Amino acid sequence: SAAILLEGLRPADQAGVFDDLNPEEQDAILPKLNPEDSADILEELEEEDAVVVADRLRADKLATIMDHMEPDEAADLLGDIEPEKASRVLDAMLDATEVEPLLKHQDQTAGGLMTSASIVLKAGMSVKTAISYLRKLTPEDEDIYYLFVTDRADKLVGVVNLRSLVTQPATAKISDIMNTDVLSVQADADQEEAAKLMKRYDLLALPVVDNNQRLLGVITYDDSFDIMEDEATEDIYRLAGIPEETPSDLPLGEAVKKRLPWLVVNLFMALISASVLSLFESTISQMAALAAFFPIVAGVSGSAGTQTLTVTVRSIALGEIEPKNAIKVIANQFLLSLVNGIAVGLIIALIAVVWKQSLMLGMIAGIATLVNIISTAFTGVVIPLAIQKFKSDPALASPIIVTALTDALGYLVYLGLASALLAWLI
Amino acid sequence: SAAILLEGLRPADQAGVFDDLNPEEQDAILPKLNPEDSADILEELEEEDAVVVADRLRADKLATIMDHMEPDEAADLLGDIEPEKASRVLDAMLDATEVEPLLKHQDQTAGGLMTSASIVLKAGMSVKTAISYLRKLTPEDEDIYYLFVTDRADKLVGVVNLRSLVTQPATAKISDIMNTDVLSVQADADQEEAAKLMKRYDLLALPVVDNNQRLLGVITYDDSFDIMEDEATEDIYRLAGIPEETPSDLPLGEAVKKRLPWLVVNLFMALISASVLSLFESTISQMAALAAFFPIVAGVSGSAGTQTLTVTVRSIALGEIEPKNAIKVIANQFLLSLVNGIAVGLIIALIAVVWKQSLMLGMIAGIATLVNIISTAFTGVVIPLAIQKFKSDPALASPIIVTALTDALGYLVYLGLASALLAWLI
Ligand SMILES: [Mg+2]
Ligand SMILES: [Mg+2]
Ligand SMILES: [Mg+2]
Ligand SMILES: [Mg+2]
Ligand SMILES: [Mg+2]
Ligand SMILES: [Mg+2]
Ligand SMILES: [Mg+2]
Ligand SMILES: [Mg+2]
Ligand SMILES: [Mg+2]
Ligand SMILES: [Mg+2]
Ligand SMILES: [Mg+2]
Ligand SMILES: [Mg+2]
Ligand SMILES: [Mg+2]
Repeated sequence: SAAILLEGLRPADQAGVFDDLNPEEQDAILPKLNPEDSADILEELEEEDAVVVADRLRADKLATIMDHMEPDEAADLLGDIEPEKASRVLDAMLDATEVEPLLKHQDQTAGGLMTSASIVLKAGMSVKTAISYLRKLTPEDEDIYYLFVTDRADKLVGVVNLRSLVTQPATAKISDIMNTDVLSVQADADQEEAAKLMKRYDLLALPVVDNNQRLLGVITYDDSFDIMEDEATEDIYRLAGIPEETPSDLPLGEAVKKRLPWLVVNLFMALISASVLSLFESTISQMAALAAFFPIVAGVSGSAGTQTLTVTVRSIALGEIEPKNAIKVIANQFLLSLVNGIAVGLIIALIAVVWKQSLMLGMIAGIATLVNIISTAFTGVVIPLAIQKFKSDPALASPIIVTALTDALGYLVYLGLASALLAWLI
Repeated sequence: SAAILLEGLRPADQAGVFDDLNPEEQDAILPKLNPEDSADILEELEEEDAVVVADRLRADKLATIMDHMEPDEAADLLGDIEPEKASRVLDAMLDATEVEPLLKHQDQTAGGLMTSASIVLKAGMSVKTAISYLRKLTPEDEDIYYLFVTDRADKLVGVVNLRSLVTQPATAKISDIMNTDVLSVQADADQEEAAKLMKRYDLLALPVVDNNQRLLGVITYDDSFDIMEDEATEDIYRLAGIPEETPSDLPLGEAVKKRLPWLVVNLFMALISASVLSLFESTISQMAALAAFFPIVAGVSGSAGTQTLTVTVRSIALGEIEPKNAIKVIANQFLLSLVNGIAVGLIIALIAVVWKQSLMLGMIAGIATLVNIISTAFTGVVIPLAIQKFKSDPALASPIIVTALTDALGYLVYLGLASALLAWLI
């Protein structure tokens, strides 16, 4: 049957197949699966999808499945279902003590990302005792690679790696073989900070502690991996004017809510350019050929602005630039923009000469583009760094500001020059 | 001294401090460091920076350091320095046999990403023998969490996890405790494919095999993590028209080479819109007020196109959509664009009425924007999927095509309607 087929798959594939079933099929198959497999599926489904499945399950059935889930995943799911049902599920769970402390931490924090540490060694233990501890782990426990060590006051004091445990004499004391140089993160730190630390130091697990350095839990590499990918997706979306992740199959209402506001903001920012164009209506009516170069002047400088901005935003996200190097970055981008601007400006001038037989028009369009591209070396660096300084996300607000400024400045320089030199143009 | 300060730091921090020194300081400090620390620094530096440092070292000195590097990092570095020097370094290395086989694989492939498997178990071994094998590892060896098992013909047949080795009786046979359901990847597979597999199944290590399923090496999670981040950066940059990663401090010549070509392509794509505008010169000269709405019609639809395109490109990269769901995705985006387009179109019409006292102008600008936004539901989905189908990178070519089409269509509909209805407009 379908249940047997599902049981033979790896968790991520089980969830993939399960997610493609319709709700009736899902409800028919779940009771036929053993709780381990059901737990794997709920763990691997996207959070929104897991909630929908959990909402349709009876509290006692859900509790049995949750007992087989990793504590961090169980806690996240409990936090997403109705509070009243969540407390009934928690009452019915056998493993509630592992999950309950995790519920106290905010999403997006290190505490919200951590799972409970299933095995913690004490500094005074022997290697032999430590190994007998390991035997108590059940197969559903997450693989454990670092064993954290606490003192009598439950403070984190060291870490033992599994390999050294295997290769040390059975009578050795944990405090003698542990590494006391152990990194940790506070529970209320941003999850992104924790993930960056794990990436920088290639850590498989990062202990989470309270203000008194007491061990609360552990963040595992797979979850930090997911965070880094989510953060990259967030930046990609925000650079495109989508404030939050919107999968391509998001319900219409939510998708509109996420994408329409930015279009409206964009519309009002475009009014700046519109006003500039309106100022020059008489120039345009005297020489409509000027309009032909609007998309070129605005489009090319807009692209140059997007390039500079994107390099800045990504470099900020990867921790490669900071406000203190701003001058150096601007200087680099200025030189680059100067070279690119001259090259592009010359091509535009040439096109004007060949196409519209007007050297003057070509010079005006070329110079406007050059000036505009150079301006992006400042706006594309300063604006994201300033937004970052004010603790906002540079990926979100920068593109709209940089684009609007570049666009308006392009029209202003182009039509300003054209108006001043109109006698020579027509 | 500075060398002592450096020795107390973690590898990533050692490299960070070292990278901030000038070349003379770097050359002065390296001979004072022990080879382990020098190896850590070369491993953690950006590849371009490591090559520069290695180029200044004598071959014998470099060989000593490389003997302490992880084989994959040593191989990557050898592949980046001059071939003649590389072969002298290889001759002087004690550990050359671990590194040499890695040199045969192309960068960007699974084989190019792998490191040599420092410990491989044989199916016939006992747990006790396996543990004594583990003791042979030196502290520089990468932490090992999965122990891969091969048969007499060196074919990969299973995997043992370190925890089960610790908790099984010493006399148990490896073939009895191993898990035979082991994922692997071919050496010539794309590195991104390998990284995606590791992410999907939360793997710490992925064995790399040849056509005969013989074990060649292992990809570790830290390197797959780096690949996923590099791929995200690549997509972010390509969406902004930068074909390759360009750090903000790239030398001018290289930065121009990477960014200018796209600006030129963009310039020529803008000629399509320029030609459309040129077609309608007489309409524009009769009613220059039309120009005021160019940035609004073009800008807002351009943003809508970027939104749809970005969702499609990211969903393709994360494996969430495929050509076979194209129809469903287009249908979703169509509805979304319809709603957003009507909302935005109405606001634009209202602005025209208030600002220019012209209902007709407002209707024309509003309808042009609506039509244009709806068109992006097709172009923003179909173009990246088509590019993906032709085995090109949708992040790279899509934005320029979608933007150019949206822009030109906007001008065409807006000015086409305005020309047809000119009598009612002025
Ligand atoms: Mg599980
Ligand atoms: Mg989760
Ligand atoms: Mg949580
Ligand atoms: Mg965040
Ligand atoms: Mg790393
Ligand atoms: Mg987890
Ligand atoms: Mg972010
Ligand atoms: Mg090392
Ligand atoms: Mg490398
Ligand atoms: Mg390599
Ligand atoms: Mg995962
Ligand atoms: Mg490595
Ligand atoms: Mg890619």
